[in-house]
Amino acid sequence: MVKMAKDNKEALIKLGKKLFAEIDKGKNPTIELPVRSLSNVSFDRKNKTLILGNKTAERSFFNVAHAKKFLQTLEVASIAKDLIHEEKHASLRDVFYMAKRTIPGTKVNLVDEQTESDDVIEDLELITELSREQLNVTANKMGSVVGRVTIEDRGDTIRWDKLGSGGYSIPSTVEEIKFKEVKADYVLYMEKAAVWERLNEDKFWEKNNCIIISSQGQTTRGIRRLLQRLYEEHKLPIYVLCDWDIYGAYIYSVIKYGSINLAHQAERMAIPNVKYVGITGDDVVKYDLKKHIIRLTDQDIKRIKQVSEYDWFKDDKVWQRQFKMMKEISGKVEIQALTSRGISFISEVYLPKKIKNKEFLA
Amino acid sequence: MVKMAKDNKEALIKLGKKLFAEIDKGKNPTIELPVRSLSNVSFDRKNKTLILGNKTAERSFFNVAHAKKFLQTLEVASIAKDLIHEEKHASLRDVFYMAKRTIPGTKVNLVDEQTESDDVIEDLELITELSREQLNVTANKMGSVVGRVTIEDRGDTIRWDKLGSGGYSIPSTVEEIKFKEVKADYVLYMEKAAVWERLNEDKFWEKNNCIIISSQGQTTRGIRRLLQRLYEEHKLPIYVLCDWDIYGAYIYSVIKYGSINLAHQAERMAIPNVKYVGITGDDVVKYDLKKHIIRLTDQDIKRIKQVSEYDWFKDDKVWQRQFKMMKEISGKVEIQALTSRGISFISEVYLPKKIKNKEFLA
Repeated sequence: MVKMAKDNKEALIKLGKKLFAEIDKGKNPTIELPVRSLSNVSFDRKNKTLILGNKTAERSFFNVAHAKKFLQTLEVASIAKDLIHEEKHASLRDVFYMAKRTIPGTKVNLVDEQTESDDVIEDLELITELSREQLNVTANKMGSVVGRVTIEDRGDTIRWDKLGSGGYSIPSTVEEIKFKEVKADYVLYMEKAAVWERLNEDKFWEKNNCIIISSQGQTTRGIRRLLQRLYEEHKLPIYVLCDWDIYGAYIYSVIKYGSINLAHQAERMAIPNVKYVGITGDDVVKYDLKKHIIRLTDQDIKRIKQVSEYDWFKDDKVWQRQFKMMKEISGKVEIQALTSRGISFISEVYLPKKIKNKEFLA
Repeated sequence: MVKMAKDNKEALIKLGKKLFAEIDKGKNPTIELPVRSLSNVSFDRKNKTLILGNKTAERSFFNVAHAKKFLQTLEVASIAKDLIHEEKHASLRDVFYMAKRTIPGTKVNLVDEQTESDDVIEDLELITELSREQLNVTANKMGSVVGRVTIEDRGDTIRWDKLGSGGYSIPSTVEEIKFKEVKADYVLYMEKAAVWERLNEDKFWEKNNCIIISSQGQTTRGIRRLLQRLYEEHKLPIYVLCDWDIYGAYIYSVIKYGSINLAHQAERMAIPNVKYVGITGDDVVKYDLKKHIIRLTDQDIKRIKQVSEYDWFKDDKVWQRQFKMMKEISGKVEIQALTSRGISFISEVYLPKKIKNKEFLA
């Protein structure tokens, strides 16, 4: 593997020079990279993150089985180098369209489907030890944030506590954001934008001196990196607020341990100390939410079995107990069920109490 | 129907008083409201919006078929009155949980599914002539905006041109936003957040003196109202940038004419003068995008037939020509296909040229 260079572009140029040197010596130009399949991913119990194993593979030009992938890798590396040089960012979809060209003298396209260029970008993360964001390639933009934080972003000074009902729209890449001032005791991340709007309207972040962040659905890499930067650079505890269902548990676990297909990025993205402050099976009794239990579908039950057997959950007694409760009552409960106790019950009672008493699942 | 009151809460109280008076007189309390089904929706060619017809229905308490819906209507009206009184907003999901309680002395829930409370909220829009937003009920929050605009929102003064790479995160309700200063020649709305990030990085809005707005996927009511307010209150032309496919055409038509299930809100939401500046079949030839045509699925073909037969499209020669081209080449083309011409081709060539030459579909 090419070792990480100080300069992002440098790492890509280094890769090119290495291959050039091999060609000069009459050798078969070859890229070596770790295998990314599940068979090479394991859960590091000590550091509590998913990690890649030692299995490596080679990709060389003079090999019928490798040639196309080899070309794709170099094409995308070249696109990334240009992006970094021009100080521009492209989405995964953009990279696909830039790479989709006919190989001269043939009728073969370099890539036909976006999965091909996406795949090669993840390979390049391993080859260059740069993250996709450092390769200036972005994915979905999603989510909002408010709190007593001042940032500098593309020359603008932005106060996250002066953004009314909307908040700051989180960009797909947060690498270039500079934190100028961070005055908060913790970060509360929630999976639902509607809950975020509730907490923002109640000025929860002002009253409880915290930062509130939401996505809508998936936790994007931009949000995960934002959480990680606030955790690492500003030593803020991160609390995750989800529905009591298997998808909520999984969202939490991805933030905590990393995800399977991005195991090579776990170190950069995982936050082993994150705490779960969302709905639990115990809350259902404590806050009288039985009426609001939603019956599990077959799909849900299947997914509980799957997730509960993941390495990072299978010896976790706290979560196994929750999964057992889900199965026993064959139900799930949403955050918003708390609204049945009053519109601001979540911001005035539920969250302050849970956080004060440290009633976390961790 | 209860006529619109100056005060939102007043409209709901008026409804209550009307029913009380009927009870006092020993009458069967009855709510009258327009029928919302497709049979009562038509396309007003003059005003170019979808409108509701004259069919009305009655909902009364002493009628076995109506009683539950009558109770639901009053329960949700009461929830909305409380929300307005407390100056709080609730999501559609929140309203469902607030309304979901057992009718005293029975084992019957007032509502069992969110569709029931959603439905009643749309009825209340008709009954009270208030919008859902005026009833303090919100839906999904989505999208980002930047441009030379200063707003006031919950006491904060926010400059949309000083928000770095992220932009202002559009709230689910924009009714309470005050525009302090709007310096722009037009508004460009796009269906894709990734395209927005491209235009923002290229400072397209600064160079072309416009406002850029994106969602990710659906155009929320918050975004539609924001577009409409900028159009009505600031006389800004609105341009819509979509993929050249039937879904892009439909997104555009909803902004222009309104949507079927919200025909009663068309007046408040539709923007008959909106122009389409997205990819067209002609662009495919002009900008050599043939290589990037994506083959239509059976689903796509079915949807083209459906949408092309809608009242507001069926006599529109400009769009019928586009639909015909889609069918003839059996393909669609994404905005991002332009990236094959260069990462900033869209912001430096494509859009400035199209807008300058007024190459719109309208």
